[in-house]
Amino acid sequence: MNPGYIGEICAIDLTTKKVDSETLDKKTLRKYIGGSGLGIKYLIEMTGPDTDPLGEENCLIFMTGPLTGTKAFSSDRFQVTTKSPLTGIFGEANVGGTWGSNLKKSGYDGLIIKGKSEKPVYISINNKEVKLLDASDLWGLDTFETDKKLKELSQHRVEVACIGPAGEHLVKYANISTCGSHARVAGRTGCGTVMGSKNLKAIVVGGTFKTPVHDEAGLTDFIKKNTKGLLENDVTKFLNDYGTFGCVEVFETFGNLPVKNWKEIRFPTANQVSGDSLNEKKYLTKRYHCGRCVIGCGPTIEIKDGEYSTEGEIGGPEYESGALLGPNLCIDNLEVLCKLNELCNRYGMDTMSAGSVLGFVMECYERGIIDRTRLDGVDLVWGDGESAIQMLKKIGEGDGVGKLLGEGTRVLSEVFGENSEEFAPHVKGLEIPAHDPRAKMGSALAYATSNRGACHMAANTSGFESGGVIEGMGFDQSPDRFEVENKPEFVMKWENLMGMLDTIPACKFIMSCGISLPDIADTLNFVTGFNFSPDDFLKTGERIFNLKRMYNNKCGITRKDDWLPSRFLTWIKETGEDGHAYPPLGKMLGEYYNLRVWDEFGRPKKGKLQDLELVTYL
Amino acid sequence: MNPGYIGEICAIDLTTKKVDSETLDKKTLRKYIGGSGLGIKYLIEMTGPDTDPLGEENCLIFMTGPLTGTKAFSSDRFQVTTKSPLTGIFGEANVGGTWGSNLKKSGYDGLIIKGKSEKPVYISINNKEVKLLDASDLWGLDTFETDKKLKELSQHRVEVACIGPAGEHLVKYANISTCGSHARVAGRTGCGTVMGSKNLKAIVVGGTFKTPVHDEAGLTDFIKKNTKGLLENDVTKFLNDYGTFGCVEVFETFGNLPVKNWKEIRFPTANQVSGDSLNEKKYLTKRYHCGRCVIGCGPTIEIKDGEYSTEGEIGGPEYESGALLGPNLCIDNLEVLCKLNELCNRYGMDTMSAGSVLGFVMECYERGIIDRTRLDGVDLVWGDGESAIQMLKKIGEGDGVGKLLGEGTRVLSEVFGENSEEFAPHVKGLEIPAHDPRAKMGSALAYATSNRGACHMAANTSGFESGGVIEGMGFDQSPDRFEVENKPEFVMKWENLMGMLDTIPACKFIMSCGISLPDIADTLNFVTGFNFSPDDFLKTGERIFNLKRMYNNKCGITRKDDWLPSRFLTWIKETGEDGHAYPPLGKMLGEYYNLRVWDEFGRPKKGKLQDLELVTYL
Repeated sequence: MNPGYIGEICAIDLTTKKVDSETLDKKTLRKYIGGSGLGIKYLIEMTGPDTDPLGEENCLIFMTGPLTGTKAFSSDRFQVTTKSPLTGIFGEANVGGTWGSNLKKSGYDGLIIKGKSEKPVYISINNKEVKLLDASDLWGLDTFETDKKLKELSQHRVEVACIGPAGEHLVKYANISTCGSHARVAGRTGCGTVMGSKNLKAIVVGGTFKTPVHDEAGLTDFIKKNTKGLLENDVTKFLNDYGTFGCVEVFETFGNLPVKNWKEIRFPTANQVSGDSLNEKKYLTKRYHCGRCVIGCGPTIEIKDGEYSTEGEIGGPEYESGALLGPNLCIDNLEVLCKLNELCNRYGMDTMSAGSVLGFVMECYERGIIDRTRLDGVDLVWGDGESAIQMLKKIGEGDGVGKLLGEGTRVLSEVFGENSEEFAPHVKGLEIPAHDPRAKMGSALAYATSNRGACHMAANTSGFESGGVIEGMGFDQSPDRFEVENKPEFVMKWENLMGMLDTIPACKFIMSCGISLPDIADTLNFVTGFNFSPDDFLKTGERIFNLKRMYNNKCGITRKDDWLPSRFLTWIKETGEDGHAYPPLGKMLGEYYNLRVWDEFGRPKKGKLQDLELVTYL
Repeated sequence: MNPGYIGEICAIDLTTKKVDSETLDKKTLRKYIGGSGLGIKYLIEMTGPDTDPLGEENCLIFMTGPLTGTKAFSSDRFQVTTKSPLTGIFGEANVGGTWGSNLKKSGYDGLIIKGKSEKPVYISINNKEVKLLDASDLWGLDTFETDKKLKELSQHRVEVACIGPAGEHLVKYANISTCGSHARVAGRTGCGTVMGSKNLKAIVVGGTFKTPVHDEAGLTDFIKKNTKGLLENDVTKFLNDYGTFGCVEVFETFGNLPVKNWKEIRFPTANQVSGDSLNEKKYLTKRYHCGRCVIGCGPTIEIKDGEYSTEGEIGGPEYESGALLGPNLCIDNLEVLCKLNELCNRYGMDTMSAGSVLGFVMECYERGIIDRTRLDGVDLVWGDGESAIQMLKKIGEGDGVGKLLGEGTRVLSEVFGENSEEFAPHVKGLEIPAHDPRAKMGSALAYATSNRGACHMAANTSGFESGGVIEGMGFDQSPDRFEVENKPEFVMKWENLMGMLDTIPACKFIMSCGISLPDIADTLNFVTGFNFSPDDFLKTGERIFNLKRMYNNKCGITRKDDWLPSRFLTWIKETGEDGHAYPPLGKMLGEYYNLRVWDEFGRPKKGKLQDLELVTYL
């Protein structure tokens, strides 16, 4: 057998242009693994409450994990970790595509970017050769163009992670984009903003390094045994047939879809902006697969004619993007929706935050809290696609009021005042994903407790509150979505598990498609030789979750922040089987804290930190 | 039959020294009645969001009602209404004693004080003769002394409403005291602070005017018929035997008592600071009855010897005072508790807010959020009566850190920071009464929606969630304290009813002692000839409640303020029959808003205002 995972980290200081590297010891790797785990370890050691997220002292951490670059299921992923300029606390985003495996090919498991370049630069890494190159000619290009140009410039096969104009203009929810027009992005918490603040346009990676695997035969055997089951799983089939975008229509039926900034619950034309509509209109050209993925959930589309033409094949809308840029704005025109999605991707900004901001501003406009002069003359009314397009462009270009809208929902509600905080859809400054917390009690608790703010992926419980089960997790049956009693334990366990998927890393969808807890622990063992039991696996996830919480605690986060806007706690439109319930958040949170062994302010108690070997970070 | 209620209002401007009077028309009297109803009518017409509560533009409204001065049960009461310096919103307090009937004897149903005197003054009203007199010699005297001196000075029988040093020093929760050492006070929301800000030390009233009664025979007959039932009622007997102070021991048994700033639930020595302990130690000398009261719940005590001697007969602790100055501070020494109560009364400050402030500061001290140097060297530790006494004196005298503690819990938590807002026991700036909202779900909703901030008297549901019933209110059975479904309707109805008790006025305890809704409506009819049905009675209460809400809405109050501190929503110690539950406040609030016909921000909808004839106040 081979030695397995190495842990080679490259640190680049853009101020001093100094490049360092470090090989992590086995103990550290075993404790934090990779991705999200090493990300928070470096973040808490390098930054803190006084760090300005847009200052040169902030660091931007790109971290793959042991599985990246191997043939493990859906493992071509990486994690970006930083102090978020959108939220002021722990920030992270997980990305698929193929950039992660190419970073590995370049010879590194992770990159840590510090400092700030005087002029626009990009980083090129090929077989451990690190170059800082002038990016003046790239500055101002959108993400599709940047990717294309850098690939043309390179003599080797490379992958590009870059920012678009939104990142350059410091839109607070700018993303980092990979895979060109397919747009596999580090979408949330403004990782692209931090990159822009460092005058770093792109990171180009490639090379010929191989990823070591401890037990190659074991891994191969495991994959052979499980591929058929994965492929034949019903969720896999749905995702391959309709993409996540197919969920728009499904979720509308039981009140999980955001409609009109969460004011409404029904959207009768949901089917016009859902997965099947892409097939029906023949816009869907193929399914995009991230590296090593057998599911293939990504829509590739082409709209050949008309004013919303895509000019070639591009990535189409996912569920979150489609829901928040569509029904959330009362937009049911598929072509407009695809254009809004494309614009976000080209400018390089989070579709979810952008859609939420537009919905929030539309409601403020409707209520007369702001008028059109405040919006540079744009009538941002429900369902008006042209106005939405116009405003997205202003945001992406930092033009006029677009600069203010680029600050995110929390700042907008502070500026607008007049009770708007009650319907400003964010938790801890991060805009709420497209799953209504009144439709699933677990989602409510997960949004409140997720470390990066309102997040549907940290716990990723949504699919498991409506039918799905993960073998080995102690929940043999999927809990009813309105049930409350078991949700604290359920959410906590899923947070511990799902954080590990961002760490080893692997796509969380495989857990919805039949992979069990022992399976995923075994996968890690095949690659690393760590010999983790399922309990070891979850406990490592618990360690990582708590370390992120400790970072947030240092930044001032306490129980008061583990909350939802009033609209979601005190206001519902329809009850019953296809409706909503009031999330009893106080009750769930109280029990969750007990289970987490956190004190009353939401700080892990010392005994728990000793158990998790985290006391040194107090 | 006589013509009934007249509605003679006297307005005194302390700046210009001008005195005006107004006789209200029957339509206005029928619409707003008196007390709390006329109070809010004047307040919303004379002040608003821009009014500085301590500026001369604020007004201080003393309002009796039709029943005051008649022989109706427990009707010798009056209401003080003002814009609160403690909360910045609607403020009010209801008082028993005998001052109300003496204001009527002086010839007026109400007084409205505006402006600010240059020098300390007091007002004397005798048979409609209004005098502004120099109070330089009274300034600095405590409430007991002030009452005594002014009565000595007067040639006639008079009653005195005055402030003590706390009001002079603008302690934000200063009260207005009547009945001298018996201390029947306008305790909450800082009415005494407003009086102090106007340099008004006292209002002395007396005279020989008679209170008109529409149907004297009917009223007499009603009283004859109902006295026996009232006297033999179990609640009456309990109140007469033990006073409200007797509830300390009872409420401890099911988690309703505040212990250690609401951190603990059990207080094994509760019986040492409960009603019976006053009897056992022979401190209780008699029961004090407010005018026209057959219940007699007030303790009159005398401690003859030792360092906590009372130097004569004084009013003893009530439940709220006893609980918040006793178990809330872990104090179980009866003599100390009586002294703390006496000091609050002498300085003229709200025992409830004072006790809450001390409990909050003790917890901050225990947690290391503040140290002893911050407290002028006083070790404010749990259970230390001497330190509590020392600190109360500093507050009452505005000495050193006492000045800061006199700002109330909300300001303190803002100044202290470090998560202290999570356990700062207030709603909308008013400190939480001594009934744990985790012990009674109705209390939770009532605290959140009461117009003056956390208030146990606005809805006064507490006793009716544990056995009591009011005939005619549509709840034939007392709802279980943990039950949630019916609480929104229950609390709303009780708020509508109880606001009327502050308006006609009458003591709310009579509703706990067997008086029915038709009974109380009839009582009003006997006095006024208004011929209100029980529904008319409740609808008038609904009008008054909504008008107060409108005032608060103008001051910026919305749904977000209808809430409880995190400690009460997310943290419990013991569950079960003698324990706590998490109040599902969001659910109750959502349903309550629907029942109230309020919009999502907690503003009465226009249709509702039309129905209540309040649209002109929009």
